[in-house]
Amino acid sequence: MPSEQSKHTELADALNWAGRELSAATVLFHTAIAERLGLNTTDHKCADILAQTGAITAGELAERTGLTTGAITGVVDRLEKAGFVRRERDPSDRRQVIIQPIQEEMERQIAPLFGSMGQAMVELYSNYSEQELALILDFMNKSTKVLQEEAIKLREEIH
Amino acid sequence: MPSEQSKHTELADALNWAGRELSAATVLFHTAIAERLGLNTTDHKCADILAQTGAITAGELAERTGLTTGAITGVVDRLEKAGFVRRERDPSDRRQVIIQPIQEEMERQIAPLFGSMGQAMVELYSNYSEQELALILDFMNKSTKVLQEEAIKLREEIH
Repeated sequence: MPSEQSKHTELADALNWAGRELSAATVLFHTAIAERLGLNTTDHKCADILAQTGAITAGELAERTGLTTGAITGVVDRLEKAGFVRRERDPSDRRQVIIQPIQEEMERQIAPLFGSMGQAMVELYSNYSEQELALILDFMNKSTKVLQEEAIKLREEIH
Repeated sequence: MPSEQSKHTELADALNWAGRELSAATVLFHTAIAERLGLNTTDHKCADILAQTGAITAGELAERTGLTTGAITGVVDRLEKAGFVRRERDPSDRRQVIIQPIQEEMERQIAPLFGSMGQAMVELYSNYSEQELALILDFMNKSTKVLQEEAIKLREEIH
């Protein structure tokens, strides 16, 4: 008969495995979205960040994503070509480039691609009680924090 | 006072938002891992798939990922250079190329990069009861299924 401890360990192993599968599915889903937009996954995630932050400098975007400023130049080139951002000069410092997201254009092209997934998720939520959804929400937020912290650690070890 | 219905809708909205943040964090975490290995995110996910399937043909890998066979060629070139796979001829059909994952080399290079994240997740799990972890596990598995189905739908709409 498994002890309390081994049952908890078993669940932790199953969760780590499920997390791996979920993350593979997430990456492939975003690759499919990005392909539809003619962008690579990193470009797409940068667009997502810009949609949340509004206009920021290339340096700020590099800092938020952990990408090199060289890589950011390529990202911004492709996003500009897709009509998702505009490069502007910082009025207070003419040497600084500000990346201005064009929210309407992003929304117009991206939102419909998430529609079917959003509906499927709402259908999934309907099988859970409010208390269960609140627990899942809390776990998701905490997992996000772990991943963000761990991505920063991984990047710090390179530089 | 919010009705039962509106509370559930509020939670569903919060979950969709949390899912978006979690997926952004997941993509950036995997980008950080891939950067450490000199691979892009797609290469890295293909390596992950090969580690699970064992040797498969380039056509099978294309099918599983939804990538074009042209894109797969680039992926396999980079994985071969990293020492993660070997191209072999199918003994039963000499025109077919089989991609043979070199599990030991992947494990050797990749596993240590996930160590710190795995530990942080196990620490997170320790705050939940077994019943709660079982609920979260079930939700994760169902979310994975949704994402896989939706990625297939998105790709079918291109081709």
